[in-house]
Amino acid sequence: MENVTLLGATGSVGIQTVDVIRQHRHRFSLFAIAFGNNVEKALPIIQEFQPKFVVVSSKESKQDLELRLTVKPKILVGQAGMEEVSTHPDVDIVVNAVLGSIGLVPTLSAIRARKKIAFANKETLVTAGHLVNKEAEKYGVELLPIDSEHAAIHQCLKGESLKEVNRIIITASGGSFRDKTREELQHVTLEQALKHPNWSMGAKITIDSATMMNKGLEVIEAHWLFKLPYEQLDVVLHKESVIHSMVEFNDLSVMAQLGTPDMRGPIQYALSYPHRLELQNAKRLDLVEIGKLHFEKMNFERFPCLKMAYDAGRAGGSMPTVLNAANEEAVQLFLNGQISFLKIEDFIQKALDEHTIINDPDLTTIVEVDQQTRKQVKSYLSF
Amino acid sequence: MENVTLLGATGSVGIQTVDVIRQHRHRFSLFAIAFGNNVEKALPIIQEFQPKFVVVSSKESKQDLELRLTVKPKILVGQAGMEEVSTHPDVDIVVNAVLGSIGLVPTLSAIRARKKIAFANKETLVTAGHLVNKEAEKYGVELLPIDSEHAAIHQCLKGESLKEVNRIIITASGGSFRDKTREELQHVTLEQALKHPNWSMGAKITIDSATMMNKGLEVIEAHWLFKLPYEQLDVVLHKESVIHSMVEFNDLSVMAQLGTPDMRGPIQYALSYPHRLELQNAKRLDLVEIGKLHFEKMNFERFPCLKMAYDAGRAGGSMPTVLNAANEEAVQLFLNGQISFLKIEDFIQKALDEHTIINDPDLTTIVEVDQQTRKQVKSYLSF
Repeated sequence: MENVTLLGATGSVGIQTVDVIRQHRHRFSLFAIAFGNNVEKALPIIQEFQPKFVVVSSKESKQDLELRLTVKPKILVGQAGMEEVSTHPDVDIVVNAVLGSIGLVPTLSAIRARKKIAFANKETLVTAGHLVNKEAEKYGVELLPIDSEHAAIHQCLKGESLKEVNRIIITASGGSFRDKTREELQHVTLEQALKHPNWSMGAKITIDSATMMNKGLEVIEAHWLFKLPYEQLDVVLHKESVIHSMVEFNDLSVMAQLGTPDMRGPIQYALSYPHRLELQNAKRLDLVEIGKLHFEKMNFERFPCLKMAYDAGRAGGSMPTVLNAANEEAVQLFLNGQISFLKIEDFIQKALDEHTIINDPDLTTIVEVDQQTRKQVKSYLSF
Repeated sequence: MENVTLLGATGSVGIQTVDVIRQHRHRFSLFAIAFGNNVEKALPIIQEFQPKFVVVSSKESKQDLELRLTVKPKILVGQAGMEEVSTHPDVDIVVNAVLGSIGLVPTLSAIRARKKIAFANKETLVTAGHLVNKEAEKYGVELLPIDSEHAAIHQCLKGESLKEVNRIIITASGGSFRDKTREELQHVTLEQALKHPNWSMGAKITIDSATMMNKGLEVIEAHWLFKLPYEQLDVVLHKESVIHSMVEFNDLSVMAQLGTPDMRGPIQYALSYPHRLELQNAKRLDLVEIGKLHFEKMNFERFPCLKMAYDAGRAGGSMPTVLNAANEEAVQLFLNGQISFLKIEDFIQKALDEHTIINDPDLTTIVEVDQQTRKQVKSYLSF
């Protein structure tokens, strides 16, 4: 039995992680959960799994929970609580499914506590990949990616040597607006943006898919996870999202991982690794039914966010932190209805242009740059 | 430096194996070659690589060679010669690229001598898989398949557990006559049959691809190589031959191996395993250029040879030996211009129908059944 701490339990990945644990109760036990303020979503999980610890983001949520639970777990608050449940000696696996760069500190703590880390929080790696990698190396911890693309790459690299890799080929569905021109993008609505053709995911990542920033963040994530330069990271449009990503080796053999789009696949893979477990109530991939798989060249003019991400990744230092913070903030403004879709990329580009790069930033610098960037992006609203 | 014995040096796989060795002279040395009677094709190989041993199938070829070579290798004749070079203490790798069930005895010898065996001779496994596996297990030898499909499966299984496999999905291009109806097959010519849409291979395997018997033999080969029952071996039509085969695991994750059709890929993979080496002068897979990959359900009425193979495989015992011998003989009759294309499957079916199964046949029985079947198939000519 492996004890799981789940950070971000009420988000899309969190809920699906709970589903995976439910299906494998003989293997996994939900030891602790952390969530923001969505007490309604968290309550049934707590009642069903009776975790020993629950971490919430505010005292109000804590009080709310205490009133409504009969069997009470230990309820902690905030970052300190996240750290406690990520490093607790009884915990075997930490699933980091929180949203945004807030996931960084608990990740570093879990690494230092030598936990197995299943990792859906790509912003952490984008914003501070060099710090995370340094700690992971020092403590001999492997990060198991939950993103479908990185889980695919991880599987393609099983039993292989990174030295024999030519390149990684990350597939991109194209998101909600794949077939729209730049002109048509001027008038798209939030509602349209939230309709992803293949994947059921949270709001932020769905918008990131529509701007193609999600793929950009994934490229940077892949750079840190698989320790390859950007020249060896390619992106190809593949609208069916059936091939989740590929690896080309020096003998020109290409390994690919395929499946019906279902986030529980990569979640369960990370939890059960190095083994595999039966995935229940899921749709088997039927290539005959699908009939055709399509591939198209990625268009960097059509999707400037992807270019920004490559550029920020190549520039390195504090640039990816700015990219990520500006994106998080701009997407939030779009989700709030405060800016139009195309303003997202304008705001990110402006933040990147205005930033003077800081090399090899430490944690304090990263947090400062992150906060400064968010403030700055908000200030663009008044223009 | 690894010393290679190459059985079947003048065939298609043999010539391409020589090319791989030429490109990696720092890694591989051609220690011995064996071939039939094609002295013309063998001469330049011998002159270029100066192998220590050469095995030919007849005394005439030996005399011919001796007259024409200035620097003389040790020249051996026949089965005994094949065994000697397959078990020689200086040999590290035996590449078995001979055609047909004649490859069985040297394979067993190489296993007993604990050589690394790269294996293009599928007929050996089809005809006597249980004997080969028993010896391979006893001597702790892994057979490395050179067939593109099995090399693909082998790569998909890297770092995985066979217990976690749901099924293997072998892809089939459909061969030269993929788009022809059964009626249209009545009038096809040998010349048409020899034009494979994707792969450059020898005559026998190209005909086997057109009848789909090649896929049937591969299914039986996969059964023995990967130790899975026929229920877990599927075939899907995939006309581009880009995905060389796939493995579905119990978590519904599907691993696939892709590449431009080029036999040197699987040959080199087998030679260099567990490492990979750069493949030179080869075409990189470009999925954007290809644009689409197609998948169709396999039609067992259209391709009865595939059904015969599944049935023979499931029946087991001496049945696959009959299947293979009848096929080798019928294809030879077709290549000789003695029967029409559709007669190939008629003759095989007749041989299978007339055979009374012998369970768990030993080597002597297999050789007897093989020879008896060949005689029988020839006798159908007089009807």
